[in-house]
Amino acid sequence: MTELAGEDARTETDAASDLQEVWPVLSTEERLEGLRTFPPGEAEDFLLSLPARDQAELILAMRPPERRFWMRLLPLDDAADVIQAAPEEEREGLLGLLDDSARKELAALLAYAEDEAGGLMNPHYARLRPEMSVDEAITYLRRQARERLETIYYVYVLDPEQRLLGVVTFRELFSAPPSKTVRDIMHTDVVVAHEEMDQEALSRLFQEHNFLAIPVIDDERHVKGIVTVDDIVDVVQEEATEDIQKFGGMEALDAPYLDIAFGTMVRKRAGWLSALFIGEMLTATAMGHFEAEIARAVILALFVPLIISSGGNSGSQASTLVVRALALGELKLRDWWRVVRRELAAGLALGSILATIGFARILTWQALFHPYGEHYILVALTVATSLIGVVTWGTLAGSMLPLLLRRLGFDPASASAPFVATLVDVSGIVIYFTMASLILGGTLL
Amino acid sequence: MTELAGEDARTETDAASDLQEVWPVLSTEERLEGLRTFPPGEAEDFLLSLPARDQAELILAMRPPERRFWMRLLPLDDAADVIQAAPEEEREGLLGLLDDSARKELAALLAYAEDEAGGLMNPHYARLRPEMSVDEAITYLRRQARERLETIYYVYVLDPEQRLLGVVTFRELFSAPPSKTVRDIMHTDVVVAHEEMDQEALSRLFQEHNFLAIPVIDDERHVKGIVTVDDIVDVVQEEATEDIQKFGGMEALDAPYLDIAFGTMVRKRAGWLSALFIGEMLTATAMGHFEAEIARAVILALFVPLIISSGGNSGSQASTLVVRALALGELKLRDWWRVVRRELAAGLALGSILATIGFARILTWQALFHPYGEHYILVALTVATSLIGVVTWGTLAGSMLPLLLRRLGFDPASASAPFVATLVDVSGIVIYFTMASLILGGTLL
Repeated sequence: MTELAGEDARTETDAASDLQEVWPVLSTEERLEGLRTFPPGEAEDFLLSLPARDQAELILAMRPPERRFWMRLLPLDDAADVIQAAPEEEREGLLGLLDDSARKELAALLAYAEDEAGGLMNPHYARLRPEMSVDEAITYLRRQARERLETIYYVYVLDPEQRLLGVVTFRELFSAPPSKTVRDIMHTDVVVAHEEMDQEALSRLFQEHNFLAIPVIDDERHVKGIVTVDDIVDVVQEEATEDIQKFGGMEALDAPYLDIAFGTMVRKRAGWLSALFIGEMLTATAMGHFEAEIARAVILALFVPLIISSGGNSGSQASTLVVRALALGELKLRDWWRVVRRELAAGLALGSILATIGFARILTWQALFHPYGEHYILVALTVATSLIGVVTWGTLAGSMLPLLLRRLGFDPASASAPFVATLVDVSGIVIYFTMASLILGGTLL
Repeated sequence: MTELAGEDARTETDAASDLQEVWPVLSTEERLEGLRTFPPGEAEDFLLSLPARDQAELILAMRPPERRFWMRLLPLDDAADVIQAAPEEEREGLLGLLDDSARKELAALLAYAEDEAGGLMNPHYARLRPEMSVDEAITYLRRQARERLETIYYVYVLDPEQRLLGVVTFRELFSAPPSKTVRDIMHTDVVVAHEEMDQEALSRLFQEHNFLAIPVIDDERHVKGIVTVDDIVDVVQEEATEDIQKFGGMEALDAPYLDIAFGTMVRKRAGWLSALFIGEMLTATAMGHFEAEIARAVILALFVPLIISSGGNSGSQASTLVVRALALGELKLRDWWRVVRRELAAGLALGSILATIGFARILTWQALFHPYGEHYILVALTVATSLIGVVTWGTLAGSMLPLLLRRLGFDPASASAPFVATLVDVSGIVIYFTMASLILGGTLL
């Protein structure tokens, strides 16, 4: 939290960094013991630097008085994360440790999904009335500065119904003539986030504007809280990890690799792996259709892995590019026709490069070891034309599939790359053996 | 920049968001014309919200007086980015537009690599002397607040040689008793970044500590500038994009998908694609070794794509997990033995699941269509045992390769997933045909 960062700019001690080193391999009891070796002030810093999952684990392992102490110490948005990270049956109990007003505010926070603006915000922020003079405002803020606010550096100007009128930075207030009122110096066109805004959209808003904080409002422009940029760094990292794991063909793990239970991890990987396996079974069916051709010219079978993997690799390049560009907002659905033209041209260029290498390889091997028989030129031609076809098709399919998934309302990152590879493998076999019939018909076939 | 965000918390107007919408398809002239339609204050906001590449393009298209105006308006670290984004031959000219002192500071900034702490920092920051009283400090800061500082919210306390003594947040200063001195309230154990710290390490430092700013120091603890958290959001996003593109088997593009020149994009993709293609040629060699077996039992060829792709998919899952965990610092090299045990167990579990599905599939197809001849049970057994072997090997290789790359000093993200797929394809063929000789020797082979 900015609040805590602001209040306490000290570094961690050696003890803290030692503990951080061995943290992943410690049991809950050992972690708790480690925490108790700190002087009180440092224990706070250390606990606050941990992810919510670890905080919850530790707090639940404590005795009741200690547990209450820590729950009351946490900033409200962190307390909400801890409660969400705790097992269902413990949440009520943790909530009960807070005082009345905190409990009420927290219940409001918990109603939001974790990945929307409302779930990221802190309900405490600095506020002013428009009719205050600059000097009154500074005095008033000096009082607020001693409370546990998220930040006093952006101050929101509210009407009596708590609706947002404007914003003023502390710095503007600080350097303004004392005789002016807050209304004179405030900005009225504030960048805001709706309470249900998705965290990915919210992080784009922060990137566009470079603000330290953005207020969260409801339909009636009531300010519900503020989100600060330091929480957005975590969001960006988290979303990137999710996307990368989906690229890798699995469900997002939502936990550090070494922390996640073995069974959960296997389950998250087995689902997609089995789905892809069942899809890849179509390759056996496709190959079965060309069993007669393979029997007549076994040489054709030798190049199947080479050809389908080239289609898969080029498709996975294209889908990676498009998925990431969609996630960053560089690409919109309506750009699809530009993507088609670009990827068609790229596919033809890349296919021709691989075809040239493949053609040269077969001719060289033939000259050196004579493995491909008398029709080696025709075999080389089959492989080369198939490569152009497969790579072009792979590139096109790889770039269009994420757009199609997005259009249908799915997450384009979901297993795009391996899914494309499977699709391209099957069609690659068909393209290859069709080329072979056309070129080798009457000679080898 | 926090500076500008702080100074101007207004939203973009409708005109600005309209322009942002069509931005990617506009020519440089149209972009410049669009910029000129804004009232002066808003044109600044808009230009400042653009990436450095676009800022450079626009500024270079302007006439000299306008060009100077904009170069002098940019905060120093942004100006450095613009100069770095401009073509080599234009840089000297852009630097010449600045006044003497700015030029000197900028030349110092440009000596840093773009992706290290020194290249991200702003050399202007708020500073105090330790012997000042709180009231003197506030007055002094009030004067500094009117200058173009990055932020006044973290104030650094320096000795006469500009060496860092401590830090105090503005808020602490603001709520401290006026009689105290800065030395009384400052924190002396400051989290700092060395000027050559890599931006990925720097972003982890921000994530651990949740600070708004971190000072950058040299070997003698002189403060060279500060890095603010809003720049770190961009860094995290940029590093994730690089990693994702490397996962997808290509060089990082370093530019938005629709902006990058076609030739550059094809070159960045063709390099890795050709390397992988040349690697995959080994599959043809491997298949060639088993040509006699395929000729005797064509049925074996049908399952080659299924088996090698299963190895590739499981390997790419494992390498994705490990590469990301390394990037996030969740995993260290010395954890390799834990990873081996975990992935060996995961590979056996996943391989057994796929083996069961594959076995069931062959038996079902045989019952329905009789495609696999009298030895179908042995064929099914060959496929199932090969799957266990290939998936276990793929998982193990996929998890170990990134650790090996890191150990050798390479970037583990570089084409890990497709490289693993290629490695596993070749060894998958060998495993499969070896199993076939063992199980089918004397019957089909």
